[in-house]
Amino acid sequence: MQVAANSTANPIGKYSFMKKKKTSLKDIAKEVGVSIATVSYVLSKGANSRVSVEMSEKIKKVAKELNYQPNQIAKSLKSGKTHTIGLIVADISNPFFAHIARIVEDEAAKLDYTVIFGSSDEKADKSWGLIKFLMNRQVDGFIIVPSEGSNDQIQYLEDHNKPYVLIDRRLPERESNYVVIDNHEVAYQAVKRLIDTGNERIGMIAYSNGLQHMRDRVSGYRMALQNHGISFDNSWLKAVNFDQVKEGVRAGIDDLLNGPKPIDAIFFATNTLAVEGLKYLDKLNVRVPDDISIVCFDQGDAFDFYYCPLTYVKQPLVTMSEEAVRILISQIDDPSLPKVQKSLQAELVIGKSCSGRLMADKN
Amino acid sequence: MQVAANSTANPIGKYSFMKKKKTSLKDIAKEVGVSIATVSYVLSKGANSRVSVEMSEKIKKVAKELNYQPNQIAKSLKSGKTHTIGLIVADISNPFFAHIARIVEDEAAKLDYTVIFGSSDEKADKSWGLIKFLMNRQVDGFIIVPSEGSNDQIQYLEDHNKPYVLIDRRLPERESNYVVIDNHEVAYQAVKRLIDTGNERIGMIAYSNGLQHMRDRVSGYRMALQNHGISFDNSWLKAVNFDQVKEGVRAGIDDLLNGPKPIDAIFFATNTLAVEGLKYLDKLNVRVPDDISIVCFDQGDAFDFYYCPLTYVKQPLVTMSEEAVRILISQIDDPSLPKVQKSLQAELVIGKSCSGRLMADKN
Repeated sequence: MQVAANSTANPIGKYSFMKKKKTSLKDIAKEVGVSIATVSYVLSKGANSRVSVEMSEKIKKVAKELNYQPNQIAKSLKSGKTHTIGLIVADISNPFFAHIARIVEDEAAKLDYTVIFGSSDEKADKSWGLIKFLMNRQVDGFIIVPSEGSNDQIQYLEDHNKPYVLIDRRLPERESNYVVIDNHEVAYQAVKRLIDTGNERIGMIAYSNGLQHMRDRVSGYRMALQNHGISFDNSWLKAVNFDQVKEGVRAGIDDLLNGPKPIDAIFFATNTLAVEGLKYLDKLNVRVPDDISIVCFDQGDAFDFYYCPLTYVKQPLVTMSEEAVRILISQIDDPSLPKVQKSLQAELVIGKSCSGRLMADKN
Repeated sequence: MQVAANSTANPIGKYSFMKKKKTSLKDIAKEVGVSIATVSYVLSKGANSRVSVEMSEKIKKVAKELNYQPNQIAKSLKSGKTHTIGLIVADISNPFFAHIARIVEDEAAKLDYTVIFGSSDEKADKSWGLIKFLMNRQVDGFIIVPSEGSNDQIQYLEDHNKPYVLIDRRLPERESNYVVIDNHEVAYQAVKRLIDTGNERIGMIAYSNGLQHMRDRVSGYRMALQNHGISFDNSWLKAVNFDQVKEGVRAGIDDLLNGPKPIDAIFFATNTLAVEGLKYLDKLNVRVPDDISIVCFDQGDAFDFYYCPLTYVKQPLVTMSEEAVRILISQIDDPSLPKVQKSLQAELVIGKSCSGRLMADKN
């Protein structure tokens, strides 16, 4: 196995960062007064332990006091595990995914796992290249933001019994582990807020893909309109391509503002769409909320500096990412566990960006 | 070799994303009317080609028209290369590094390389874990934002003849490939701008590490003060820990503003420090540039929404990242090439955030 081969070639002690004397099983055995085998047995967490609970606790306590760190390479050899997770996000330059990556990494580190990232750029073939490379290099499992058309790749993981958790987006056609938010519900609430604050002609700027989370956001938007007696106008929904966000958002806003009856409000389906949209509205000197009401998805440093506090959908990024790590690692440890599907509630944070022209009662 | 073994186990054609019939050497040979060997010879770019330039061009043209994609696995087996780069950044949730990651990825993709990321969280032991994992899994080379104390890890790469390029930061104690900016010079220009616009008491908020790029930014700041007859006051330089950015920046600003003689201006040494600092100044109702002048490092969506257009150091992120990829891949192809060191010029972009209290001639 490569891990062992290369490690032997690399004499421990040559590099100063390896020199720190580590606590060994022997140190713990000496301190407690038992055999090395007993210490090893307790710390490797064998079931039906032959050691008394009392002794077991004592050994664990001493191991902790001496800051015992199990040797990862030896552990790898024994378990066939690498204690490494592959994380495939859609676009690492998007702060939303960069934050997920960071939280996944922090949570994995707590559980003694390393995370290796790849970014699919929303392209199925790129995602496949990354999955293939990391599969061949023995990551123990994957956390994946699936791109459009990647269903077969997930099938490939299933076929090879590789644990994985989908995050942010699920693939409705298959029963996999996933942690997502209830996109339909929170989109409904977001648009309801726009209606409640006096807006009637409400545009939405979304992505033009067929991914379920995007469909759900659109269906929430349409149902909110419908349930409040507003008949949806096809020209209100603008679909933007991933590859042309700036141009698409600008064209969409131009259409929404310059139609025979301009819209009162815009619901942006993601942070990236909102950032581009707000920049363009600034350029056009369209003011929020005086000229137009806005609700968007996600928060970020950019929005913190925006002149008008925005009403936005706050996704539970920490819970979502931590859950994904925990589900994955539990299934790496025990592949027979049943699949877990979590749909978390997102929160609508009320700012000052909704203020309909139709009501005296401004927000 | 794992790549081959696993790929054999995976029957090509089973998954629809593999089913697309690919152009083979045979297809090209048939189209051009030459042997498969000739096509192979030309497309594998053998030096001193035995094929005429004319024929060579024709084969390449047809290969392009037929959208020929060389088989990566076969190429790997033949060359011992995986066509994969490991990129270690300091913090993937920092937009500066996330952007570098994205550009590295795009440039590598053009050259037919896949990028796998890891984030060191500015910790040498984490960086070492990532390098070790990726080394053992045969990445062809590394692009690394070195964290403090990682000099020995770089030595390890040298000892194992693994090509690598340092980016954003260099390690002055060793002669390695690197692509950085001239931090001293642009910091000098930034502080000179503050002085030229009428500021005398100029604070700096930096990180408390000993990394060369941070030292250079501080030395540029100090030299600008010195060359303009301003004697540096120790209390003007605030050093913040990576692990406590928010608290550190706030404490630093409190000190700078509440001393016996408050400062006129602040130079923020990174984007993260600036974002935290500007948020805190907002909270304190200290207005830019009326109450205080500001110059910061880097741009970003956050600054685009800030009420006052900022004067900032614009790093040539695209050039820096693309150069790093090109240098690395050229050395993967030919390890005997000499090391390359690039120090790029950064640009000071003039906004409206510098306006000294001491001059009538406001910016």
